[in-house]
Amino acid sequence: MEEVGFDILNLFIVLLSAWGAGALIKRIGYPAILGELLIGVIIGPSLLGLVELSSTLHIISEAGVILLMAYIGMEINFKDLGKASWAGLLAAVGGFVVPFALGYFVVTFSGGTTMAGLFVGIAVGVTSLATKSRILVDLDLLDTRIAYVLMAGALISDTLALIIFAGLSSFIDAGAVNMSEILIIAGKIILFFAFSTGFGLYVLPRIGKWMASRNIDNRTTYFTLLLLIVFGLSELAELVGLHGILGAFIAGVFIKDGVFHEKITKDITRVFHDVSIGFMAPIFFVTAGFHVTLDVFKTDLMLLLLIVGVAFVGKIVGTILFYLPSGNGWREGFAVGTGMNGRGAVEIVIAGIGLQKGIITQEIFSILVFMAIITTLSVPVLLTWSTNWLKKRGELVKQFSRKGYLFLSANPLALLLGKHLADDNKVVFIDANKTNCENAKSKGFDYVHGNILEESTLNEAVAKDFRTFIALTVNNEINMLASQLINDTVFIPEKFVAISPHSGEGGSINILNSISASTLFSGKVDIQSWIQKVQDSNYKEVEVSVSKKITTREWLKSQFSEDKDLLPLVIIESTGAKRPFRYDDHIDADEKIIYIE
Amino acid sequence: MEEVGFDILNLFIVLLSAWGAGALIKRIGYPAILGELLIGVIIGPSLLGLVELSSTLHIISEAGVILLMAYIGMEINFKDLGKASWAGLLAAVGGFVVPFALGYFVVTFSGGTTMAGLFVGIAVGVTSLATKSRILVDLDLLDTRIAYVLMAGALISDTLALIIFAGLSSFIDAGAVNMSEILIIAGKIILFFAFSTGFGLYVLPRIGKWMASRNIDNRTTYFTLLLLIVFGLSELAELVGLHGILGAFIAGVFIKDGVFHEKITKDITRVFHDVSIGFMAPIFFVTAGFHVTLDVFKTDLMLLLLIVGVAFVGKIVGTILFYLPSGNGWREGFAVGTGMNGRGAVEIVIAGIGLQKGIITQEIFSILVFMAIITTLSVPVLLTWSTNWLKKRGELVKQFSRKGYLFLSANPLALLLGKHLADDNKVVFIDANKTNCENAKSKGFDYVHGNILEESTLNEAVAKDFRTFIALTVNNEINMLASQLINDTVFIPEKFVAISPHSGEGGSINILNSISASTLFSGKVDIQSWIQKVQDSNYKEVEVSVSKKITTREWLKSQFSEDKDLLPLVIIESTGAKRPFRYDDHIDADEKIIYIE
Repeated sequence: MEEVGFDILNLFIVLLSAWGAGALIKRIGYPAILGELLIGVIIGPSLLGLVELSSTLHIISEAGVILLMAYIGMEINFKDLGKASWAGLLAAVGGFVVPFALGYFVVTFSGGTTMAGLFVGIAVGVTSLATKSRILVDLDLLDTRIAYVLMAGALISDTLALIIFAGLSSFIDAGAVNMSEILIIAGKIILFFAFSTGFGLYVLPRIGKWMASRNIDNRTTYFTLLLLIVFGLSELAELVGLHGILGAFIAGVFIKDGVFHEKITKDITRVFHDVSIGFMAPIFFVTAGFHVTLDVFKTDLMLLLLIVGVAFVGKIVGTILFYLPSGNGWREGFAVGTGMNGRGAVEIVIAGIGLQKGIITQEIFSILVFMAIITTLSVPVLLTWSTNWLKKRGELVKQFSRKGYLFLSANPLALLLGKHLADDNKVVFIDANKTNCENAKSKGFDYVHGNILEESTLNEAVAKDFRTFIALTVNNEINMLASQLINDTVFIPEKFVAISPHSGEGGSINILNSISASTLFSGKVDIQSWIQKVQDSNYKEVEVSVSKKITTREWLKSQFSEDKDLLPLVIIESTGAKRPFRYDDHIDADEKIIYIE
Repeated sequence: MEEVGFDILNLFIVLLSAWGAGALIKRIGYPAILGELLIGVIIGPSLLGLVELSSTLHIISEAGVILLMAYIGMEINFKDLGKASWAGLLAAVGGFVVPFALGYFVVTFSGGTTMAGLFVGIAVGVTSLATKSRILVDLDLLDTRIAYVLMAGALISDTLALIIFAGLSSFIDAGAVNMSEILIIAGKIILFFAFSTGFGLYVLPRIGKWMASRNIDNRTTYFTLLLLIVFGLSELAELVGLHGILGAFIAGVFIKDGVFHEKITKDITRVFHDVSIGFMAPIFFVTAGFHVTLDVFKTDLMLLLLIVGVAFVGKIVGTILFYLPSGNGWREGFAVGTGMNGRGAVEIVIAGIGLQKGIITQEIFSILVFMAIITTLSVPVLLTWSTNWLKKRGELVKQFSRKGYLFLSANPLALLLGKHLADDNKVVFIDANKTNCENAKSKGFDYVHGNILEESTLNEAVAKDFRTFIALTVNNEINMLASQLINDTVFIPEKFVAISPHSGEGGSINILNSISASTLFSGKVDIQSWIQKVQDSNYKEVEVSVSKKITTREWLKSQFSEDKDLLPLVIIESTGAKRPFRYDDHIDADEKIIYIE
């Protein structure tokens, strides 16, 4: 046995630094990994020398990389990839191939080995996914076509990079030169992918079914099982000459909803997230910073500038060029390129492996870390600028992948609101009450007759494809609990909840906040009496304009001061599209309101 | 930097073995740790030699011990300890002191060092907590006084063992002999406990409040924070000369409900459970088996038999003797002794530290592992036997710590049912409706006016002290969701849910099963109409006997076949105590039923 001491002190210091730096950098809108790399450079041997790499840090960080890659795999949904469209594929390929080629040439022309060139090419070609989703929210871009292209592009580019890396690293290990060796290696790789695909598509779902049939619902049992699958495929990948991270990634990809019960998959994915992102992976990224030498700024400044330059130009120009056939215009291609310019976890993992295997020098490794830092820093700046440019030109195209309104309750008021929204949206009603369902049917609406608490009802309604959930029963508790459920299981992003003014709902606002739901009608409304009025046709619809931009809350207040009893239903946008009237929204001067009174 | 390879293969094999052996042994009712130790002995160098200890296994298992001790600390509730009573304290002290002394003498008389004697003494004195809770459920003992004494006893004994171990290990490290050195060490230890207590009681709650005030609800952030606290206190303990596990344990003890939001604490505790019990700690226990040498059965058989004998006799006789003053009788003391006879995680951790520090030999370590295996094996056998003996003598005393019924809704039907149950139980009603609350008040009941979804309402009702939750609103969804909430947050063990026969509740049975709730009234009942009848005093109460033992379901069927419209409220036991009529219960021949019609 190798006797190695367990080193709590450095583990503590590194985790503390990672946490602090990550939290700081997140406050200014950057991903935690950036802070972790930077603090690693600062406290590591190259600058302050406060901590050095111990076996404990090394083992924990290696385990962290395996778990992180499994987690990244878990987050990839190939169904989303299927929807990714032509544009996303173009952006991904262009954004990978061009910087890959440029990176390769820069390294080989400046005297590096072919292998080093290929490694740097991959590192330069990679796109970081984590970097962007946060930025898309900050820039309010989630609904735009760019966002979908970006996310699909990053996904494809990551998968592409990993596959190329897989092939590459296995040949490096084997040092193969002649044809028969290459064939053997290729055969092994094919066998590995065939085996792991077969395992993931056929064996794993059976294990899942068997466990469900035996009523095994202990989360820890599933966690251990998934760890075994991750470590098992990881080791198998190593055995065929691929790197272990690839097996872990593939294991993660196959751990999907259909395999285990939805809640189990969700819980376990979160545990993998906690353990990798919250514990082990930060150790890896901080210690990656330990290997960085600042001397490159003196000794290899030219190469540093060249690689960073290639990373920028290659990614952005490559994206623009390959994006042209999508017909979305070169300016949108430019915006997509700026958004894909960040590098993150996958790049550092690959660069780290290159360093460990001696394929790239410490200087190149350092350059790649700085490249990750600089490109990641550039994303919000360039993406803000490029999307603002598109916005000004009126070329920022919106695209919803989740569409339509899912109503809980098909009562007369819900049907009335649904009628307005159905003009340009899919509207589906869920109700456990037969009469309500028949009413919905008679008005030509789609409906699902069932209890919203049941998974089968949500599946029947294909709840996860909706953009907005509207809970409009007379019962506050049901509305809120259903919204919470919808948020926790199928995650419909927008949730509008009707709140009646009866007693005992003091805590509702907290619940609404915690699931980012919003109050329908912008305030407490006696739903029951409005349902009655609509049912008895004892109301009239009024359409009004507003004189200036005003919040829904203010508008409602201004109306109440005139002592009218009214219920605002929808806001009509200048394009004619309608959206429900809710709290925390504002009405522009060119928009109108439909209310009933 | 020490360059150490990351060893996925052995990690995979050890985790797989641990999982398989743990699952097998759990099927026959033993704790997983027993299977892990055994498989470690089998696959390790002493028997098959399939795996040997690598740095990866070592580091992961050491990290696992730290996280496991933190988790054990988290599970300890000092409020429970406060309730533990005189009897629990007596059993704990007797069950620790006597085997401790005997173990010490056996080792020193057979030529061991004083330090080895003290270490073995602690290992022999420890009681395993995890071993028992499962057995208590299997033997249906959870409600007995023995169960409470056992749990409190094991808790106190663990804490006692860790404190003594703390003192001991610090003196061993220092090798102190003269008075001034001893004083310095003692001073350091006192400072450490003062600091960690101050931190836990004053600083930690402030951090919690500050984070809550900033609306930080990202679970991973809390997980990282708690890891930092665990590693931090662990390192601090090492710095003052105590072992790191002690700091981790203390950190765990202070991570309690009041400090963070209840849900966060619960989530994080589960993550610590998943990572320690589901991943890292099994690596530790399997590799502990690697250090075992089977030669002790030849070379040190006498010492083995002596230590195991001392463990049995010391624990059981010690418990009986010290338990006498409790006035609960020596036979109950005997049963408690058999229940406390298992050793588990804490013993193996302490023995492992003894081996690592060179205080005990590999032979003694092996003996201690076998002692853990044999004593743990004995627990279900001896405890079944001793409690059956008590049962036959009519001396198995029941004791509920959770008592009474918490009702959701104070509607007239609920008040009627509550009136029956209030004869010998605490009954509290929660209702958001003022009229219902005033009705409850006028009938002299305790009530809480508020929404059950709010934490403050549950706190006001002191929901966590109840044994049974009865959801009796007219709305199935509310009843079920409230029960789910009650199950997930304050965990009231019994949940009886009223189900009305309106459409759309096909999935309710699954929900009820998943939270082990039971249907009130043993079937679907039109709650609304019964409420009306009770409100209008349009009913009469009937008391009937049953001729033979019958399930509630069968009884109800037999009544319906006579075409009566009745609602069974409670079952009167032979002692006069009443319990609600529910599904999945049976009525004995000497019991009566009260129903309304």
